[in-house]
Amino acid sequence: MRKLMLPFVAVAVAMLGATAAVAQQPTKAEQAIKYRQSVYQVILWNLGPMAGAVQGKAPYDKDAFAKQAARVATMAPMLAEGYPKDSFVAGKTRAKQEIWANWAEFQQLMQNFETKSATFAGVAQGGDLAQIKPAFGELTQTCKACHDKFRSE
Amino acid sequence: MRKLMLPFVAVAVAMLGATAAVAQQPTKAEQAIKYRQSVYQVILWNLGPMAGAVQGKAPYDKDAFAKQAARVATMAPMLAEGYPKDSFVAGKTRAKQEIWANWAEFQQLMQNFETKSATFAGVAQGGDLAQIKPAFGELTQTCKACHDKFRSE
Repeated sequence: MRKLMLPFVAVAVAMLGATAAVAQQPTKAEQAIKYRQSVYQVILWNLGPMAGAVQGKAPYDKDAFAKQAARVATMAPMLAEGYPKDSFVAGKTRAKQEIWANWAEFQQLMQNFETKSATFAGVAQGGDLAQIKPAFGELTQTCKACHDKFRSE
Repeated sequence: MRKLMLPFVAVAVAMLGATAAVAQQPTKAEQAIKYRQSVYQVILWNLGPMAGAVQGKAPYDKDAFAKQAARVATMAPMLAEGYPKDSFVAGKTRAKQEIWANWAEFQQLMQNFETKSATFAGVAQGGDLAQIKPAFGELTQTCKACHDKFRSE
């Protein structure tokens, strides 16, 4: 049974990334870049509607908001592994090379985002917009701290 | 305090998507496509190394494998919201238009993946490769079932 399964698994997994398989294989660095950019996209997908609600541009839906906040907190710990050594590729990433020369500082900024997003998920669960608004500002400040230092324009 | 925070929040969130803000704003459909493709990328990032371990092409690391399986199970429920109505854009997505005409069937296939990925995360936690191998085949089969029906070449 197990042996029968293996070719199938190989085919199925190849099919998952069929486009990449036909085109030139991306390098490890390119894979990491694509991965971390994807994690940011998922974060942004959730952060965008929250920003709208916090700014009063969209109605505040407690449950939707809490779910989006939880999703951001879920995604945050997935980021760091997207920055293996030597995953700077000019023209393919806005991540600055300084990241790897200042790894401890970068890790700390990532950790700040991770911690704050978990705290924020709890605040969002509470459903009190008066508490959510300043907490959301603190959360986005942890994004900005890393972007200011380690992301190119 | 709250009022002072709001302009900052607006700036910070704008900075999160600065490239998109400078370039033409993507449509809602394009945003959804980018989102769901990002979720798939994160899934693939985790599924790839698991496939290597299952196929014996890479060493089996119980903890890493269990974490990857948990990540897939975490991402699976994020997919469905990436398919709002009218989020077919020719040339930008391999998702077939048939999805929206067969929504109940599509939802069922998504649900199968979600359920199976959760089951698989439990099997992976157990750390018994003899159980993991066939279970991994069952998991990738739920990917394939949806790709065969609803993804174009």
